[in-house]
Amino acid sequence: MKIDIYNHVMPVAYLEKVKQHSKDPGIVKRMSNLRMLWDIEARVQMLDQWPDVQQVLTLSLPSPELVGGPEFSPELARIANNGMAEMVRKWPHKFPAFVVSLPMNNVPAAIEEMDRGIEKLGARGVQICTSVNGRPLDEPEFFPVFERVTRKHDLPIWMHPARPAARADYVNEQKSKYEIWQVLGWPFETSVAMARIVFSGLFEKLADMRLITHHCGAMIPFFAGRAETLWA
Amino acid sequence: MKIDIYNHVMPVAYLEKVKQHSKDPGIVKRMSNLRMLWDIEARVQMLDQWPDVQQVLTLSLPSPELVGGPEFSPELARIANNGMAEMVRKWPHKFPAFVVSLPMNNVPAAIEEMDRGIEKLGARGVQICTSVNGRPLDEPEFFPVFERVTRKHDLPIWMHPARPAARADYVNEQKSKYEIWQVLGWPFETSVAMARIVFSGLFEKLADMRLITHHCGAMIPFFAGRAETLWA
Repeated sequence: MKIDIYNHVMPVAYLEKVKQHSKDPGIVKRMSNLRMLWDIEARVQMLDQWPDVQQVLTLSLPSPELVGGPEFSPELARIANNGMAEMVRKWPHKFPAFVVSLPMNNVPAAIEEMDRGIEKLGARGVQICTSVNGRPLDEPEFFPVFERVTRKHDLPIWMHPARPAARADYVNEQKSKYEIWQVLGWPFETSVAMARIVFSGLFEKLADMRLITHHCGAMIPFFAGRAETLWA
Repeated sequence: MKIDIYNHVMPVAYLEKVKQHSKDPGIVKRMSNLRMLWDIEARVQMLDQWPDVQQVLTLSLPSPELVGGPEFSPELARIANNGMAEMVRKWPHKFPAFVVSLPMNNVPAAIEEMDRGIEKLGARGVQICTSVNGRPLDEPEFFPVFERVTRKHDLPIWMHPARPAARADYVNEQKSKYEIWQVLGWPFETSVAMARIVFSGLFEKLADMRLITHHCGAMIPFFAGRAETLWA
């Protein structure tokens, strides 16, 4: 049995909301074109080729706080999480579990949705992005999210990069070129977030916190020697 | 014989200018504290322990355009390059060659200094940073530098990352924390510059151009699979 623990889906009801409300036409086009992301019957059929493969479901970008403001993102998260819960209920042998997405620009609602998703829908963890609309995760406002998932639920956090094309690679430019924001920017941003979580002391405050980073730890495993020398 | 082709020095006369004119006290302190960077007699003595090691000399950060405006950076480059040429003349068995630094914020002067450094001082290539004070290397203004070193001199370009602490890792912050700008930011920036050079077509325009990137190619060797998939 092989369980892919970081697989993405986009429930159709969520995709519709993204199409209506996202201000990033690039991401909408990208997600709409990836049929296996939202056509789950087609995915299940495809997966039949590899009967020993199971997938833990996580929501694809854009996350709720990237699509709607704090008054709307909680509803978006509920739609996404209900959709993933439904997939797990329908095809438990393909999808043994899912992970809730949270409206991170509204922390009280994120806590509420975390509890609902885990306790009512059976989610096995939470997914957050490496930043909340560009803000670092070690801002005190976000601490209750890390605390709750660790201390109350004892479940892990999946962390996904969210650097957008609008984040320029050079100070005199308006956006990233040649997909650099994704190809190189995502692993960079993941590792930056990892460093911030460590050095801001989050693991001291929450020694039992478990974090699953995307892309096998991004840059950190490859630059461990550099990190050890310069951060020693 | 082991030749380290990317070793840094800081001629004392250049260090003095950096101390007087740099607006980045962090880098001045860092360089001043690294004795082996500017006390070359001490370095030569240290190197005596490993008689089979030779070093090709390149200038340490900050590069001339990071210290002075376009009217002053050419003089800074001459001071640095004269200093490195003197080290090579004095200890040819330790330092078989050096590479010129260029005042990249003044392209005509950079060309002139390249010619002088290679033809009069015997430099075996040029060093540039991954950006010119934050501007990407594929801006047409910088093309003559790549063209000249390739077509006229047939010598390689050493490329060094230059991301400063002032480049914030998050959009709502003013600077990078926990040395992230250097530990993770430098390999990221090197790979971003490599991608820009490739996709902007610089190797199509200058098929014989040779580029030596710092840190063994930075992220590219490790993320070759990701790059191949997403850039295919």
